[in-house]
Amino acid sequence: MAKLTSRAEDYSKWYNELVVKADLAENSGVRGCMVIKPYGYAIWEKMRDEMDRKFKETGHENAYFPIFIPKSLFEAEEKNAEGFAKECAVVTHYRLKTDPEDPKKLIVDPEAKLEEELIVRPTSEAIIWNTYKNWIQSYRDLPILINQWANVVRWEMRTRLFLRTAEFLWQEGHTAHATKDEAIEETEKMLHVYADFAENFMAIPVIKGLKTESERFAGADETYCIEALMQDGKALQAGTSHFLGQNFGKAFDVKFTNREGKIEHAWGTSWGTSTRLMGALIMTHSDDLGLVLPPSLAPIQVVIVPIFKGEEQLQQIDEVAYEIQSKLKAKGISVKYDNRTENKPGWKFAEYELKGVPVRIAIGARDLENKTVEIARRDNLTKETKPLENLDVYIENLLKTIQEDIYRKAATYRDEHITKVDSYEEFKQVLEKKGGFISAHWDGTAEEEEQIKNETKATIRCIPLDNQMEEGISMISGKPSNQRVIFAKSY
Amino acid sequence: MAKLTSRAEDYSKWYNELVVKADLAENSGVRGCMVIKPYGYAIWEKMRDEMDRKFKETGHENAYFPIFIPKSLFEAEEKNAEGFAKECAVVTHYRLKTDPEDPKKLIVDPEAKLEEELIVRPTSEAIIWNTYKNWIQSYRDLPILINQWANVVRWEMRTRLFLRTAEFLWQEGHTAHATKDEAIEETEKMLHVYADFAENFMAIPVIKGLKTESERFAGADETYCIEALMQDGKALQAGTSHFLGQNFGKAFDVKFTNREGKIEHAWGTSWGTSTRLMGALIMTHSDDLGLVLPPSLAPIQVVIVPIFKGEEQLQQIDEVAYEIQSKLKAKGISVKYDNRTENKPGWKFAEYELKGVPVRIAIGARDLENKTVEIARRDNLTKETKPLENLDVYIENLLKTIQEDIYRKAATYRDEHITKVDSYEEFKQVLEKKGGFISAHWDGTAEEEEQIKNETKATIRCIPLDNQMEEGISMISGKPSNQRVIFAKSY
Repeated sequence: MAKLTSRAEDYSKWYNELVVKADLAENSGVRGCMVIKPYGYAIWEKMRDEMDRKFKETGHENAYFPIFIPKSLFEAEEKNAEGFAKECAVVTHYRLKTDPEDPKKLIVDPEAKLEEELIVRPTSEAIIWNTYKNWIQSYRDLPILINQWANVVRWEMRTRLFLRTAEFLWQEGHTAHATKDEAIEETEKMLHVYADFAENFMAIPVIKGLKTESERFAGADETYCIEALMQDGKALQAGTSHFLGQNFGKAFDVKFTNREGKIEHAWGTSWGTSTRLMGALIMTHSDDLGLVLPPSLAPIQVVIVPIFKGEEQLQQIDEVAYEIQSKLKAKGISVKYDNRTENKPGWKFAEYELKGVPVRIAIGARDLENKTVEIARRDNLTKETKPLENLDVYIENLLKTIQEDIYRKAATYRDEHITKVDSYEEFKQVLEKKGGFISAHWDGTAEEEEQIKNETKATIRCIPLDNQMEEGISMISGKPSNQRVIFAKSY
Repeated sequence: MAKLTSRAEDYSKWYNELVVKADLAENSGVRGCMVIKPYGYAIWEKMRDEMDRKFKETGHENAYFPIFIPKSLFEAEEKNAEGFAKECAVVTHYRLKTDPEDPKKLIVDPEAKLEEELIVRPTSEAIIWNTYKNWIQSYRDLPILINQWANVVRWEMRTRLFLRTAEFLWQEGHTAHATKDEAIEETEKMLHVYADFAENFMAIPVIKGLKTESERFAGADETYCIEALMQDGKALQAGTSHFLGQNFGKAFDVKFTNREGKIEHAWGTSWGTSTRLMGALIMTHSDDLGLVLPPSLAPIQVVIVPIFKGEEQLQQIDEVAYEIQSKLKAKGISVKYDNRTENKPGWKFAEYELKGVPVRIAIGARDLENKTVEIARRDNLTKETKPLENLDVYIENLLKTIQEDIYRKAATYRDEHITKVDSYEEFKQVLEKKGGFISAHWDGTAEEEEQIKNETKATIRCIPLDNQMEEGISMISGKPSNQRVIFAKSY
């Protein structure tokens, strides 16, 4: 197995190689679309199941809406349409026919042209609000709290596995409410659900904040986000929650009779996370040997590798290993015992390091004698010898420790990479030499934001929700500012 | 709540009304595409989770492949291409732009025409085998046992909710093997998994069989199926499992070195079930009052309804009801306590009958005195009074009994509707007056099959796997036949 390019050498290349070599995903025969391989999909399933649990716990139900949006519905909410029109796949025909010039080929049948073009959903507000229109008459029909797990298509020109693909998998929550306050409460609630999920399940520390107007979702009055920091000092938006105001309520004429008997437009929210989170996971924790997975997301949490000479010794190790395996399984821990004889232990060690298996148990001849095993942690690469006795309890606790340590390590890195700067000179220096989040004053105008973006490629990632108010002056215009915002280069 | 049209009056209308009134699904703003509503989706989720468990138990992994298939890949396997070309959605452009004649409208940007058209997958053999090509070099890379949960699009002209929709949700298994025998074994194994799922989880009895050549999946060497019988005497194909031979291996040049060191094309299977199963579920069990759900699939298994006069009595009932609820929940039973005061008990009874909740518990003033409850079964509409003591154990057993009884009822109906006939006259009479499965001899030719289809609309649903050999003569041509096959009109 050829070694991975190191992060120091070429971070971007390291990422691309790792995604493919660890069997997470690969490019497909369709421009910009990926194949998510079984190992990668198993990780995504764990994310999905945990998020789904949290959504249901907070009162949401799943449903499914069509993948196609007729053009007339797509264009109904103008800002939303404008935001997505430039990158959408359009279905224009519904049939192929045999090519009269070559019977082995098919061509689009010009007689099967659709009367109205269909857009492959880049996001589903339009088709969903068009449906909600028929579901909502009275305040008694509200709130509607629905989530959808689906594929969406955005015709991105420059794509990268998981981070930016023409098709990706995601969940999109779409809720309708009787009051503005309730809709804002929902928007914020889901942001906290995302943050909790990122930090406690994916072990990724995030900053919760508000987007500036220029970075808002097309069609939203306010976009909340969680921002994570990758190991190369670039930020990654890991989830967004939008307060839609009455924009879609008005565009799709979704009206209801309120408690006072007056007709009003419904208030909306939408919120989403996607397979992009796979990219965040990889770039937050992994190292030059391969993936590092928090135990909560590892399809295999523990791998057992025998180190043996000859069939007889292997049989003795088998016996010990199967017992460990069954005890760990009884505790709900996923364990693989790899006693294949085609590959040497060293090869297996490298393979499971690449795949990010959190704990490796090796059993050799001396271990058999001493009733011990060797335990190696993937996250910090430490090894120790432990007795067989109560090994299951030890491993169970170790997995919890690893989960916490992985989070702590990422949080430490992140905290060390939030730099307060007070001048544009310093801003540019920090951005270039250190990267990470830069906390600085901003004058609140789109102009200054735009200038900084053009000159440095850094954007305002968010205005943190827990910001302390602080008087200052903005870096370029010198205008007064009462709080710092978070800048960074980003994925 | 207006009553449902009865089955006797108009079976088709009854079905359409029930799907909408029970909140399972509705038509959307996109021709032929449905919205699966939360209650319907919750039932589908239960099907999906159980099937997914069975697939994993039999060694399969999930993965995800692109929704688009470039035309050149789509046409590679000729029969498959021919079979789906007439009903596929085609993406031809990747951008919209503002209409120069009306800035509020969008039009397809002619400059954003794709070099090669993309087909929205009607089934994924093409894109998947094009991917497998790179995964398979040696027999050691085989078998590949992958399943995908996805949406697919088939441009059907006449659509009906769940039964036939332009877009539907499904799972598609795609496996590759080193030998023909192994591929056939896999094809049959998955058929048995489907049959087991249909009978033991959905309470739908099925006949396992082989399709005739004319009914085979486009691109398969053999199609296995499970056939269910609806209450109107029409058959419904509930799942198919295809032995693909080396057809896709050859079309996509998927070659490997076998154990003997020779180069060979891989052998394939594919198998699928879809949201069509929702239609089968509804039409197998439900009645004129609404849905009848087997407990295994019911989002709400037990509903508790208080029958009270005044706030004080309601509070007393609340106390009892919450205790029942918590005891049932502890047993993993899903329970809803509906103590809303806006609706009368009679309204609630009708509502939960419509929704197919298997068990209703009513608690009134006399029940409080006697420490009893009234239990009503949705499936057979019987009621009985039972003591509060050990009610949880009683309900737990009752749910098992209901699951079995629902299956038995459907099996009895099905068995009573398998009619052996020996002449074409009798065939036509039975088909018209009784419907159901007709077991008859057939001469094995596509011509006779076609004639019967044209004259009676009945098709050969399958050649049952457990068929007893029996000498006979075919109904029309009078040629010798050594087994009966199953005919029916079908969905």
